[in-house]
Amino acid sequence: MDVKDLYENKEKYMGKVVTLQGWIRNHRKQKEFGFIDFHDGTYFKSCQLVYTKELSSFEAITHLHIGSAITVKGVVISSPKEGQSFEIEVKEILLEGDSPNDYPIQPKRHTREFLREVAYLRPRTNLFQAVFRIRSIASFAIHEYFQKNGYLYFHAPILTGSDCEGAGEMFQVTTLDLAKPHKNEDFQQDFFGKKANLTVSGQLQAETFALAFKKVYTFGPTFRAENSNTKTHAAEFWMIEPEIAFCDLSSLMDIEEDMLKYIISYVMEHAKEELTFCEKFVEPGLFEKLNLTLSKKAVRITHQEAVDLLKKAKKSFENEPDYLSDLATEHEKYLTSEYFHAPVFVYNWPKDIKAFYMRQNEDGKTVAAVDLLVPGAGELMGGSQREERMDVLEERMGAMNVSKEDLWWYLNLRKYGGCYHSGFGMGFERLLIYLTGVENIRDVIPYPRTPNHLEF
Amino acid sequence: MDVKDLYENKEKYMGKVVTLQGWIRNHRKQKEFGFIDFHDGTYFKSCQLVYTKELSSFEAITHLHIGSAITVKGVVISSPKEGQSFEIEVKEILLEGDSPNDYPIQPKRHTREFLREVAYLRPRTNLFQAVFRIRSIASFAIHEYFQKNGYLYFHAPILTGSDCEGAGEMFQVTTLDLAKPHKNEDFQQDFFGKKANLTVSGQLQAETFALAFKKVYTFGPTFRAENSNTKTHAAEFWMIEPEIAFCDLSSLMDIEEDMLKYIISYVMEHAKEELTFCEKFVEPGLFEKLNLTLSKKAVRITHQEAVDLLKKAKKSFENEPDYLSDLATEHEKYLTSEYFHAPVFVYNWPKDIKAFYMRQNEDGKTVAAVDLLVPGAGELMGGSQREERMDVLEERMGAMNVSKEDLWWYLNLRKYGGCYHSGFGMGFERLLIYLTGVENIRDVIPYPRTPNHLEF
Repeated sequence: MDVKDLYENKEKYMGKVVTLQGWIRNHRKQKEFGFIDFHDGTYFKSCQLVYTKELSSFEAITHLHIGSAITVKGVVISSPKEGQSFEIEVKEILLEGDSPNDYPIQPKRHTREFLREVAYLRPRTNLFQAVFRIRSIASFAIHEYFQKNGYLYFHAPILTGSDCEGAGEMFQVTTLDLAKPHKNEDFQQDFFGKKANLTVSGQLQAETFALAFKKVYTFGPTFRAENSNTKTHAAEFWMIEPEIAFCDLSSLMDIEEDMLKYIISYVMEHAKEELTFCEKFVEPGLFEKLNLTLSKKAVRITHQEAVDLLKKAKKSFENEPDYLSDLATEHEKYLTSEYFHAPVFVYNWPKDIKAFYMRQNEDGKTVAAVDLLVPGAGELMGGSQREERMDVLEERMGAMNVSKEDLWWYLNLRKYGGCYHSGFGMGFERLLIYLTGVENIRDVIPYPRTPNHLEF
Repeated sequence: MDVKDLYENKEKYMGKVVTLQGWIRNHRKQKEFGFIDFHDGTYFKSCQLVYTKELSSFEAITHLHIGSAITVKGVVISSPKEGQSFEIEVKEILLEGDSPNDYPIQPKRHTREFLREVAYLRPRTNLFQAVFRIRSIASFAIHEYFQKNGYLYFHAPILTGSDCEGAGEMFQVTTLDLAKPHKNEDFQQDFFGKKANLTVSGQLQAETFALAFKKVYTFGPTFRAENSNTKTHAAEFWMIEPEIAFCDLSSLMDIEEDMLKYIISYVMEHAKEELTFCEKFVEPGLFEKLNLTLSKKAVRITHQEAVDLLKKAKKSFENEPDYLSDLATEHEKYLTSEYFHAPVFVYNWPKDIKAFYMRQNEDGKTVAAVDLLVPGAGELMGGSQREERMDVLEERMGAMNVSKEDLWWYLNLRKYGGCYHSGFGMGFERLLIYLTGVENIRDVIPYPRTPNHLEF
């Protein structure tokens, strides 16, 4: 049985003999008895095994190593230890797999840098048990939110023949022999008969499905070959990209806020132990931060209003707030954590710093784009109403050098029963950084891929 | 509001004015009135709009094109038409987006080949509404099954530095300039400082997480650069790969069967209309096939027993059944559909035709591998107990030319608290082919990638 089951039904098992299988986290031996900190990975908390000299196998048990896999048979008894409701009085332990004295994961504090080097073992630590469990739970919360609300899960293609989304550098994918030089026409011999890349976003394809299913979302890996070694960049990361037909910018903001609150509530309910650990050891104030987002109605201001506020702020910023530029992290922080104390939607952005597919506003200067900023994490989602007017879209693609030939099908959506529609993207790891307080994206991805790092 | 809501709560809306937004599927005009077959993508069935000459906009409405996007305001009334419980008496229609007369999706039968060419529009047809809705619903069923049963959702890396899993040809991923020839040492200048590939399976990494969380599953894209143009091969497809610690081959079969039955039940409950369509237009007998799998306990026989049965069969096979070879499709068919009339687990396979990580049996000849064959679809899942004995695994890797250097971390799992464990893989598209009766993998993937095909 699982330790999870034991924790959730401890009354039922009290006094009963149970069989558990898992790993030794810690082992303290005394002359007459010993304690094993036992963990089976199904529950965040571990479970204490107690054994005494009365067992004929006492001597053998005392020699069990940290890290070993065991099968234990024992009686569930109430525990005298404070804050621990039960423990297991060992009857029998079977060693399934030994672990040597130089086992890398010892019951002590390891640096996150060291743990990245043994990424295949780090899920055996408390921090990564918490982080990856939250990753799994948050994933499900996202699926459940959209499925409950009638969205179709759309698997966007990973391999793409287009390189025009312009969201950053792309990885090339090929089966050609790299030992040889290749001319453009050589790609006719490549697997797909042309150049192929890894997707940077499934949005454009998601739009095609939104115009058939009304409400769709993607949840899959995306890639950027950006050579940057920051805490927030990885070459491979997961994105959620909902796309909704007959939805304007204001309704989009409603959906973003509703979804975020659903995820936070779900994770707070289903990962209590894990969040408590994060609050204690990763980000003091985590619950307060999450509760703030949960309880406050998000503020909605235009980019212009945001810059007005920043200019009026009695505060000197390193970056001068500017009506034609993006907000800097310090600006986002000021708006969410100092001025509004709430999540903030900033909408109607200057068109020249935004993508070609965003809908132009009547002023001719801005587009119906929106960023959601949250206290303690900055930008969490970015979305927009999409340009549904064929002529405006074509003009914009021309001006921004986006290939109309490659995107003939995307353009055609505007010809065949097009309608106003909107969508947004949320980086899943950014959400996890927000939910756990862990600062480095390398620590919320099982096997992170960054420049010069492709281990495991 | 959504048509789905209307169908599910029709009593509530009867006699009320509602506003719907969606697309015109078909349009039949008469002198005094007209009918619009209206679809908004939230429900499989469409909804009939009726308008009469009494409307001042009658003339304008008669000119609405098939494919157009509209907003309609009307009253929900009971329908005189057989098999249709309600219709909408139009008060007002707003044209959101027109569609030309040469709109490719007309209310007639299109060939699947043609629809692949307009893959960005095919989700607007009944068949692809059914297929992609089942795809979404089955995805959720899989997540729900594993989350309910305490599994951790593990995002396996897509980019990998290893090419040793041996499951087929791999795609190379690079940021190097392909116009130039590259020596091996040039890859130090590549994005990851070494050669990179797209994953063919997340299993080996999933094992590392199973030895920390006990029960994990992956659900993500995998890739094969196999130059084969069959109905069942795609270069990009989604896989589910559960991996369970302290699980032997017999328990693994329990899990596979339990999961499959859960998915089938869930889809039958949540995609009734869609399956009914598939039964009618795609695979007559679909429900019978699914119910057979659902109601029968799967048979379990060894590979040797399977070959015995085939040899004894009063039937001539094109492929001679052989104790040392894989089963052919005709063999699978005989076992499931003619002999047992049930799903069949075939286990204990000859080791020489199976992968290096499968656990060797005591006989020295077979491995603890298992394939699940289902009536009407052949092999649906493949799994095995994993070799947990370091020396046996190393010997096997040596014999099969698998690099121990690349997989040092995989080997180490056997050193640091290893335990008996098992896992299986299920191709998601293979499941969909089984669930829908659609025969070609190109028709269950939104944007299929196959040799020389990388459109959209």
